[in-house]
Amino acid sequence: MGDTNKVWRLRNRPVGTIGDEVLSYAEEPIPTPAAGQFLVKMDYLSLDPTNRLWMSDIDQYMPPVAIGEAMRGVVCGTVVSSNHPEFAAGDVVSGLGSWSKYQIGIPGYINKIGALDGISVADAFGLFAVVGPTAYFGLVELGAPQAGETVVVSAAAGAVGSVVGQIAKIKGARAVGLAGSDAKCRWIVEDLGFDAAINYKTENVPEALKRACPKGIDVYFDNVGGDILDACFKQMNLKGRIPTCGLISQYNATGEVPGPSNYPMILMQRLKVEGFIVLDYAARYPEAIAALSGWMREGRLKYRADMHTGLENAVTTLRKLYTGENTGKLMLKV
Amino acid sequence: MGDTNKVWRLRNRPVGTIGDEVLSYAEEPIPTPAAGQFLVKMDYLSLDPTNRLWMSDIDQYMPPVAIGEAMRGVVCGTVVSSNHPEFAAGDVVSGLGSWSKYQIGIPGYINKIGALDGISVADAFGLFAVVGPTAYFGLVELGAPQAGETVVVSAAAGAVGSVVGQIAKIKGARAVGLAGSDAKCRWIVEDLGFDAAINYKTENVPEALKRACPKGIDVYFDNVGGDILDACFKQMNLKGRIPTCGLISQYNATGEVPGPSNYPMILMQRLKVEGFIVLDYAARYPEAIAALSGWMREGRLKYRADMHTGLENAVTTLRKLYTGENTGKLMLKV
Repeated sequence: MGDTNKVWRLRNRPVGTIGDEVLSYAEEPIPTPAAGQFLVKMDYLSLDPTNRLWMSDIDQYMPPVAIGEAMRGVVCGTVVSSNHPEFAAGDVVSGLGSWSKYQIGIPGYINKIGALDGISVADAFGLFAVVGPTAYFGLVELGAPQAGETVVVSAAAGAVGSVVGQIAKIKGARAVGLAGSDAKCRWIVEDLGFDAAINYKTENVPEALKRACPKGIDVYFDNVGGDILDACFKQMNLKGRIPTCGLISQYNATGEVPGPSNYPMILMQRLKVEGFIVLDYAARYPEAIAALSGWMREGRLKYRADMHTGLENAVTTLRKLYTGENTGKLMLKV
Repeated sequence: MGDTNKVWRLRNRPVGTIGDEVLSYAEEPIPTPAAGQFLVKMDYLSLDPTNRLWMSDIDQYMPPVAIGEAMRGVVCGTVVSSNHPEFAAGDVVSGLGSWSKYQIGIPGYINKIGALDGISVADAFGLFAVVGPTAYFGLVELGAPQAGETVVVSAAAGAVGSVVGQIAKIKGARAVGLAGSDAKCRWIVEDLGFDAAINYKTENVPEALKRACPKGIDVYFDNVGGDILDACFKQMNLKGRIPTCGLISQYNATGEVPGPSNYPMILMQRLKVEGFIVLDYAARYPEAIAALSGWMREGRLKYRADMHTGLENAVTTLRKLYTGENTGKLMLKV
C-alpha cells in the first residue's frame, strides 16, 4: 500500500510533567499478522489520565510500559487484513492497543464494536470504550447512590466525571461537581444538569462544599486525590462511599505525596473507600453500554468529545489532561 | 446502705496524653432510679482505646462526653434496685454506662448478660461486651479472609488484636501480628498460635512484613493507623481488604497527623478500606457470642484479662493502653 507505520515508543520514565524526552515518534515497517492475528489501522486514539501511570514504574494495576516498547493506549481502528476467522478487513474494532498507526490486534484486548444504533463510531468509542463503563460501575456499583443523597465528583468536566454527575441525577441524587474553570462549571450545571459546581481553583473548597452539600456528602467519586479528597473526607456522611477511580493530582508528582490528613474520617464515619478499574468489570460491559446508550437516546445523558487531530500530536494533546485545559473526552483522530 | 457514690467527671479536653487535669474523681450522692429505670452498682469497668476519643471534641462516631458529664464507659455490674419490670435486684448487667460506682441503668444501653455456660462473669464481660464482637464482625464480615490468605493485625497483643489473629487461624488463614515488645510477640505466637509476630519498636516493619508475609497481605485489620498502616498499604495484594477498627497511634496527637502516603495503593491494588464500630452490629451480637464461646469451649480461642483494681485507678490504668504497657483486655475490678 506504500504507506509506512508511525509509532510512539517509551524512551524514558517521566519525572514530573511529561517532557519531550519521554517518548519518541518514528517511522517503522508495518507489522505482518501471524496466524490467528489481524492488522489494525488506527482511526482514533483515546487519551486518558492513566497513560501517565503506564509510563512510570511506580506500583500500579498493570505492568508499566517497558522502555523501548510502543506506548500502550486505548484505540479504535479498522481491520486491514486478518488471519483470524472472526475478524475481517473492514471490521471496526476497539480496545487496548498501542500508540501506532498500524498494529497487531490481539483478540480479547481488541474487540469488534457492536451495533451502534444511531451513535457515531467516534462517540461510541469515546463513551463506551472506557469512560462510560468506568463512570457506570464506579458510581452505580460502588457508590450506590440513593434518591435524595448527595454525590460529589471531582474532575467533573472531564470525560468520566461529566458522566458520573449525569448518572447521579438519573438515580435521583443531588450532583455536585468540582472543575477548574468557570466555563467548565457553567457547562456541567447549565448543559449537563448538575445541581451545583465548584471552581476549585478560585473558591475555598471546604466552604464551597458546605454550601453546595447542605446535607453532607454521601458519595464522593474520586478522580483526583489530594486536597479535594481531604476536603470531602471532612464532610462525608455516616456510611458514605468513596469509589476511587483516579488520583490525577498526584500522577505528575516527583516526591512523596502526603496522604489525606482526614483519613481518620474513614473510622469516625464508617466510610467505605474502594479502588477499582473498569477492566474488573469487562464481563459486564454490555450492561453498562445498554444503560448508557438508552439514556443517551432518551436525551438524559450528554456526551462531549474533545477531538484533536494527528497521531504526531499525541503527547502535546495528552498534556492537556494534567493542566486542566481539557473538557470532555480527550481523543485524537488519526 | 451508708455507701456513697464515686464518679469520674470530664473537666478538660485532653491535649496529647491524658493529663491529671482531664478528669475529676469525687464523692457524690447515689442517684435514685425513676419509673422505668434501675440502679446499677459497678463490678467491672472496661478500659478501651476509644475512651480517649470520647474525651475529645474531634469528629467521631458518637457525640463526645460533655464537659462536666460523668465519663462514658462500658461497664458490668449488678442491679441494686429496680423500677423496671424486666430488671430485678441481683441481675448481672453490662453495656454502655459511666465511670461511676453507682449509676442509673438505661435499658437498651445496659442489658442483662445471658447464660454464661462455664465462663466467668469477668471473662464473659471482657470478651463478649466489646472485644470479641469487634474482632468477629471486623474480620469475618469486612475482612472476609479465605483459607490460605494472609491476615495482618496491629496491636496484636491487645484485646481485639489477639482475638482477630486467632479467628484468622480458625478460618484457615496465615496470621501475622504486630506488637510492641518481644514478650508480646512470644505470647501471640507461642500461646495464641499466630504464624509470625513483628516487634514494631525494634524491627524494620516493611522488611519484617515482607519476611512474615511472603505471599503479600490480603487483609490488614487496622487498629493503629500511622506508619504501620502505610507499610501495610505497600504490601497489600490485589483486592485486599482493610477493616479499620482503630487508629490509636493518632489519638494522643496534638497537631495535624499526616495521612498515609501510600494511599494510592487503594487505587492501584483495588483495595477496600472500611471503617466500622461494633455498635453497627448490635443486632447480631448473639451470632458473634455463639461463635466465640463455642471456639473458647473447644480450646481454639484463648482470652487474657489484664485486670486491675479500684475505680480510683481508672485514669492511671487507661494510660497503659497508649504506652504499650498492656497485654490482653484491660479492665478494672471495682
